[in-house]
Amino acid sequence: MKNTVQVGLIGFGTVGSGLAEVLLSQQHRLAKRTGMTIRLAKVADINIDSLPPQFSDVSLTRDAAELIDDPGIDIVVELIGGIEPAKTFVMQAIAAGKHVVTANKALLSQEGRDIFTAAAEKGVEVGFEASVGGGIPVIKSLREGLVANRILAITGIMNGTANYILTRMTDEGIPFAAVLKDAQEQGFAEADPTYDVEGIDTAHKLAILMTMAYGMHITHNEIPTEGISRVEPVDIEFAREFGCRIKLLAISRNHGDSVEAHIHPTMVPESHLLAKIDGAFNAIHFTGDMVGNVLFYGLGAGKMPTGSAVAADVVDIARNIRAGSVGRVPPLSYLPREIGDRRITPLDELCCPYYFRISARDEPGVLAAIAGILSHHGISIESVIQKGRRESVPVSIVMRTHSARESAVKGALAEIDTLEVVTEPTVKIRFLDEEPC
Amino acid sequence: MKNTVQVGLIGFGTVGSGLAEVLLSQQHRLAKRTGMTIRLAKVADINIDSLPPQFSDVSLTRDAAELIDDPGIDIVVELIGGIEPAKTFVMQAIAAGKHVVTANKALLSQEGRDIFTAAAEKGVEVGFEASVGGGIPVIKSLREGLVANRILAITGIMNGTANYILTRMTDEGIPFAAVLKDAQEQGFAEADPTYDVEGIDTAHKLAILMTMAYGMHITHNEIPTEGISRVEPVDIEFAREFGCRIKLLAISRNHGDSVEAHIHPTMVPESHLLAKIDGAFNAIHFTGDMVGNVLFYGLGAGKMPTGSAVAADVVDIARNIRAGSVGRVPPLSYLPREIGDRRITPLDELCCPYYFRISARDEPGVLAAIAGILSHHGISIESVIQKGRRESVPVSIVMRTHSARESAVKGALAEIDTLEVVTEPTVKIRFLDEEPC
Repeated sequence: MKNTVQVGLIGFGTVGSGLAEVLLSQQHRLAKRTGMTIRLAKVADINIDSLPPQFSDVSLTRDAAELIDDPGIDIVVELIGGIEPAKTFVMQAIAAGKHVVTANKALLSQEGRDIFTAAAEKGVEVGFEASVGGGIPVIKSLREGLVANRILAITGIMNGTANYILTRMTDEGIPFAAVLKDAQEQGFAEADPTYDVEGIDTAHKLAILMTMAYGMHITHNEIPTEGISRVEPVDIEFAREFGCRIKLLAISRNHGDSVEAHIHPTMVPESHLLAKIDGAFNAIHFTGDMVGNVLFYGLGAGKMPTGSAVAADVVDIARNIRAGSVGRVPPLSYLPREIGDRRITPLDELCCPYYFRISARDEPGVLAAIAGILSHHGISIESVIQKGRRESVPVSIVMRTHSARESAVKGALAEIDTLEVVTEPTVKIRFLDEEPC
Repeated sequence: MKNTVQVGLIGFGTVGSGLAEVLLSQQHRLAKRTGMTIRLAKVADINIDSLPPQFSDVSLTRDAAELIDDPGIDIVVELIGGIEPAKTFVMQAIAAGKHVVTANKALLSQEGRDIFTAAAEKGVEVGFEASVGGGIPVIKSLREGLVANRILAITGIMNGTANYILTRMTDEGIPFAAVLKDAQEQGFAEADPTYDVEGIDTAHKLAILMTMAYGMHITHNEIPTEGISRVEPVDIEFAREFGCRIKLLAISRNHGDSVEAHIHPTMVPESHLLAKIDGAFNAIHFTGDMVGNVLFYGLGAGKMPTGSAVAADVVDIARNIRAGSVGRVPPLSYLPREIGDRRITPLDELCCPYYFRISARDEPGVLAAIAGILSHHGISIESVIQKGRRESVPVSIVMRTHSARESAVKGALAEIDTLEVVTEPTVKIRFLDEEPC
């Protein structure tokens, strides 16, 4: 029985050095839990010349291939991020018969099919707990804890940077750009924040969860995605008047022959737990046909939380190596042959209540004209707030509709925005509430 | 390779019939996820004469021993609850070389040591996901997802009945007894609610989590426990003035050489996620040294959620049977030899801020007398609300202290309650906030 498992790590950046610290600091505890020594044996990184002194027994190379080809390495951990050369390294590691662990959601959501197919053929494990929800054990929970459920819906706050920005906009009433700049200066947001604030990172994660939850092929670019960069403090204020918080949500529903998936700023009722998730935290909510609603909450990023999740994958695989049970659980929850294609509902067919903020000159008949257009498109109004709090000129006409079809909303807003009295493009934000159209 | 796993179920009550429904309705899905047929083969129950028609291929016996001794049964699921005969059946099943799954927290928290020792000697698995947090996969998450963490604290709402009662008391301002009666009539509370409302069920669950989190032996009766039956609507009202909700919390902290554990109604700041868990839901919050704060939320009881968790254990064991990897993960997270004894901090040594509600006649000098006693015991007052909202006679003097030691609080309240002007025993409720004494 093999009692030592050797780990090779490609990428010694923030998350990589976090994993190294987790494995070192928890080595004794992991031995007491697994009966094994789990040892970081080798690091490959092109950007560093030496490892910190506590890793004196870990060898360092600039050549990932040397690590991948090392017969002493059992598990290759890829923590460089991005598509290339990450994919090449992962595919080489699989071809060399190594088990792979990665936190790379971009890679998996775009190239997952190649990777999981290669791994299944070669009979090696692919761990990716850290790719969604950072330190939260959401992948294992979905795959194993909820195994006896048909997953009906996934709803989640899956990007800590976007949630941090929205939380500060909500608490302090300051604009997106100002919070982003401050967050960048403090290191809470990347220099290029596009993936985080435009919902792309969230789409990567939702695609991974959907594949596992529904047993379907999907890549992130099939998911309609809208970010938070156009949310304004005034919309957050109006949201409050409707009893809501604005959150960047990933929303997916399983309709059987088709599935729904979309990412956008969303009006979340204050009574919903997701409205209460603040700061850099993530929370992922599943509805299962047996278990009902469950939610998993924690830090979705960061050196040590991500290191914790990567280490959990390493331990899981180490246990399979020792027990001779590699392949015990299919990585994507369903057996590879059971993963198929499903229709993704086009955005135009989706239904939900909408928030509109229409900027118009304060003239008689404006509301009548707008209401007429909405009515013509079959959209019914639930409530209207006619004045902005700031007595601004032009005024804001704010409304909540009953459930309406996206295609009807697009048509109506196109007409409304051509009205001569309307001074700016209308802002629309979807409500979370699910009502049939 | 074994492709069919046969399950024997002892106890066809609410949870038992829920498991049967889960295994039947999800059989096809489980096959697509595991490649196996997981089949409920036999039920033992002394109270029923026949099974519902959809279970026509499941055999029924009144004799649990017959099920336990059936060589065709791989996994015995015990869902009768209570200590006996549940323990006897579980020990017999283990002796017969069967794997065991149970939802029985009373049994595990009291007799767990015998059961896990016998299972380890016999080389069989014991699954108990459903014993804590109902359908929430909290046991697996703690044992596997958080494996690379030293757990520093466990804080949780672990009893749905108690939380349902407190939520209704909070929302409707009605007394404990009235809500309980209504909950009993609606089937949300047991005829004998003692375990739920007095915190005993919560103690069972906390003991199980502590064993796993800290690698220590502990039984539920070592945990100081106070229930919610003495919480009054007026305390809930005053809690609001301190920005808090009253919740029945299990609280445990890992201080290294000693551990803290206690269960009681608790003032939880509204900003804390646990303050926002309403109704019959449970939420369990862990702090890990690597992952930081994580929380797991869902229904902590009920036929189908519990069935979902029991089924997840059955699947986990079935996978081990097929892969030949029984014993792959130690059930209590640590290897049996690593589980030791730890000092449990006596309640008298604990420190936290306190809420006091002192009932006194409205006479000059009362507050001075009370403040003098508190000061004499080294307890400092953070804020005082001198009048109850109801202008009651006698008045309520309500205060929040800075962090104080339990022994000092006991001494001070004993003195205060002997003051001639004090008309009723003082009510004390602990705050969640952690400040050093």
